[in-house]
Amino acid sequence: MRMTDLISKKRHNIELTTTEIEWIIKGYTNKEIPDYQMSSFLMAVVFNGMTKAEQLALTQAMVNSGDVIDLSAIEGIKVDKHSTGGVGDKTSLILGPLVASMGVPVAKMSGRGLGHTGGTLDKLESISGMKIELDMQDFVKQVNEIKLSIIGQTGNLAPADKYLYALRDVTGTVESIPLIASSIMSKKIAAGADGIVLDVKFGAGAFMKTLDDAKVLAKAMVEIGRDAGRETVAFLTDMNQPLGFAIGNALEVKEAIETLNGRGPADLEELVLQLASYMVVLAKKAANTEQAYVQLKEKLRNGEALQKFKDFVAAQGGDINQIEDPNLLPSASTVLPVIASQTGYVEKIDALKIGIAAMKLGAGRATKEDTIDMGVGIVLNKKVGEFVNMGDVLAYIHTNQADSTEVIADIHQAYEMTESPVCSPTLIYDIIA
Amino acid sequence: MRMTDLISKKRHNIELTTTEIEWIIKGYTNKEIPDYQMSSFLMAVVFNGMTKAEQLALTQAMVNSGDVIDLSAIEGIKVDKHSTGGVGDKTSLILGPLVASMGVPVAKMSGRGLGHTGGTLDKLESISGMKIELDMQDFVKQVNEIKLSIIGQTGNLAPADKYLYALRDVTGTVESIPLIASSIMSKKIAAGADGIVLDVKFGAGAFMKTLDDAKVLAKAMVEIGRDAGRETVAFLTDMNQPLGFAIGNALEVKEAIETLNGRGPADLEELVLQLASYMVVLAKKAANTEQAYVQLKEKLRNGEALQKFKDFVAAQGGDINQIEDPNLLPSASTVLPVIASQTGYVEKIDALKIGIAAMKLGAGRATKEDTIDMGVGIVLNKKVGEFVNMGDVLAYIHTNQADSTEVIADIHQAYEMTESPVCSPTLIYDIIA
Repeated sequence: MRMTDLISKKRHNIELTTTEIEWIIKGYTNKEIPDYQMSSFLMAVVFNGMTKAEQLALTQAMVNSGDVIDLSAIEGIKVDKHSTGGVGDKTSLILGPLVASMGVPVAKMSGRGLGHTGGTLDKLESISGMKIELDMQDFVKQVNEIKLSIIGQTGNLAPADKYLYALRDVTGTVESIPLIASSIMSKKIAAGADGIVLDVKFGAGAFMKTLDDAKVLAKAMVEIGRDAGRETVAFLTDMNQPLGFAIGNALEVKEAIETLNGRGPADLEELVLQLASYMVVLAKKAANTEQAYVQLKEKLRNGEALQKFKDFVAAQGGDINQIEDPNLLPSASTVLPVIASQTGYVEKIDALKIGIAAMKLGAGRATKEDTIDMGVGIVLNKKVGEFVNMGDVLAYIHTNQADSTEVIADIHQAYEMTESPVCSPTLIYDIIA
Repeated sequence: MRMTDLISKKRHNIELTTTEIEWIIKGYTNKEIPDYQMSSFLMAVVFNGMTKAEQLALTQAMVNSGDVIDLSAIEGIKVDKHSTGGVGDKTSLILGPLVASMGVPVAKMSGRGLGHTGGTLDKLESISGMKIELDMQDFVKQVNEIKLSIIGQTGNLAPADKYLYALRDVTGTVESIPLIASSIMSKKIAAGADGIVLDVKFGAGAFMKTLDDAKVLAKAMVEIGRDAGRETVAFLTDMNQPLGFAIGNALEVKEAIETLNGRGPADLEELVLQLASYMVVLAKKAANTEQAYVQLKEKLRNGEALQKFKDFVAAQGGDINQIEDPNLLPSASTVLPVIASQTGYVEKIDALKIGIAAMKLGAGRATKEDTIDMGVGIVLNKKVGEFVNMGDVLAYIHTNQADSTEVIADIHQAYEMTESPVCSPTLIYDIIA
């Protein structure tokens, strides 16, 4: 087999065989295929796409390039959730304990954030003492005992995806639905869950800018998951404004605790309950999503979900006091209001601009080497559809910096106002089940 | 400027500016832009093409990446010819002296062949003593004195094209009309001629397989040439059978001498006269191509063209005796007839198959390191349209090898026969002037 011939085949839109795709991924992982051949191949994929069979073959080849986590020592059906990433998305912090409180085992490997705000691991680390590096034995034991553990990625999962992603990042080949779908699914499959619930976000603050693109991506991932023997469901959710009110690590943990207390923002609670319902059904702990929803809502009301979060924090060495009194979590030295300069309805809040503003405050990393300031961030006070009088507070900035002029301007820029009434936006557009 | 952004721009089919293209070519030539970015860019060009302005910018950037030959010390308008390459194409050997005999200065830099048969330089080297490495001063002096010199490429012409071509060759990005057009034109423009006549061949033995593709390429090159200030004309000619009868280095020199004597194969003589007519008009040595044609035909009849060839060979140290008696040129030890195994009309002679057969005999190089056997090759005896009786000679093999079974089989394979009469094929399909 010659890479030049396979590039040419893809270029001429002829379907590659599973063997050919395996050969490419193996050769690239072993550094036998040079970057310059891989990048022209990837660009041909950008233009000609990949068939269903090719996407499955690519995903499985990337899974097989590294370790595959064996969760068989954990009792029950393991269900994982993955979000394509959005601003203010703290769902994992809530979903984990909520679903675990229904007896569903949640053995989650999570990542750090590179971008506007921290990842789930970063957020958890705003809790004092929280250990996110467990070995596999302790991880399995904890999930069997309390049904929940969230840790950093262990082992060498889908290294081919890591190499490919690094190359795509510098060769203009990131935006390709088959490549994105196989990248996400290879990591999820290698992480060992039996079932996967995907939250595919679209809008200004998300990777997919339109509902149509997000739908194509969601369908591709659901097909790959099922063909690979994992029950997979995908949500299509709006990211045309941040999720909930809080953006920033400790601020998001606080909001997650509020939500686990049954006092969370409506949009966040609804999304969490819907995602959790599907996870519970995939784990066969409820007959249908309607029943699951009712039971999950009760777990928020009766404190069992919050208790599960405390058990989880305690098991991983975190400070329970901070959960019981979130004011003990890291906080910023200064809180500044951002004041509305006009009267009208909020039409849109550009989530990307809000995310970047939060990053400027220190809530996220611009490069891998940056450290995160746990207490800082933004808390929205007005969301899409609300009426605002000039002089009202649009949002609060939590900062440790002396000068907030630029961030205040960014937030003003992010808010788009109109004189006519605006409907509160739909959050969940579709569920591909 | 960031290469990733420029790749993305091309990927999204947004026209690049001249400055951006210059930056890319400069960066790649200086090895500041890595191969893996260049190859994904090239694949994006394969899919999205290039605008007229982009092609001109690319060509000029490649010209500027190296030396540009200054032919201003040569009196008169210098006109060059370039063929996209075909089997049995010895036109340069004839055109040079023919056009020079009209007083047109021909200062030609030529290349060696990598492929089925040798290039013009290889063919000239089948003449004993022929020196093809002159310094610029001697080259200019010779053209001023006798109007003709053909030498190997001197200086560092369009190095960016060389690097790019090597990369395209291994990344599935060779077949792209804008890339082919700018590659050819960058070398021609750097070589310094004022006018350029292009012979774009199409068919089984050519790089362009169809007339339509060849036409697009020809138009692209004519536009680039004119926009770069060089008068450019392109011929579209058939390569669905070899040109003339002879394929092989000394064999082609012999046929060139025959043609200069006015006794050449009809197709070869006609193509040479047509190409030469346009060269003479571009050089302003005739008012129109019809007048040029008549005068050129007379130069073949009255021996002036042949005399010019002898002057040229003598000036570069070659043995005139071999021109006066071509039997003194290198020849093969064995000549074998290939006998027709059926009766009928010759419908097609696959030029690619004939070219490969000649290469197997040693007439061409499979790799850069191979040496050429000057005397060997194939001489066709029947061409398209001719009636053949079973037992007639289709072609002769000139070989120094013991076993010719494979080559004989190749030639049989190349001849496609039919029972119904076949028209002699059109040679010149179009002239873009």
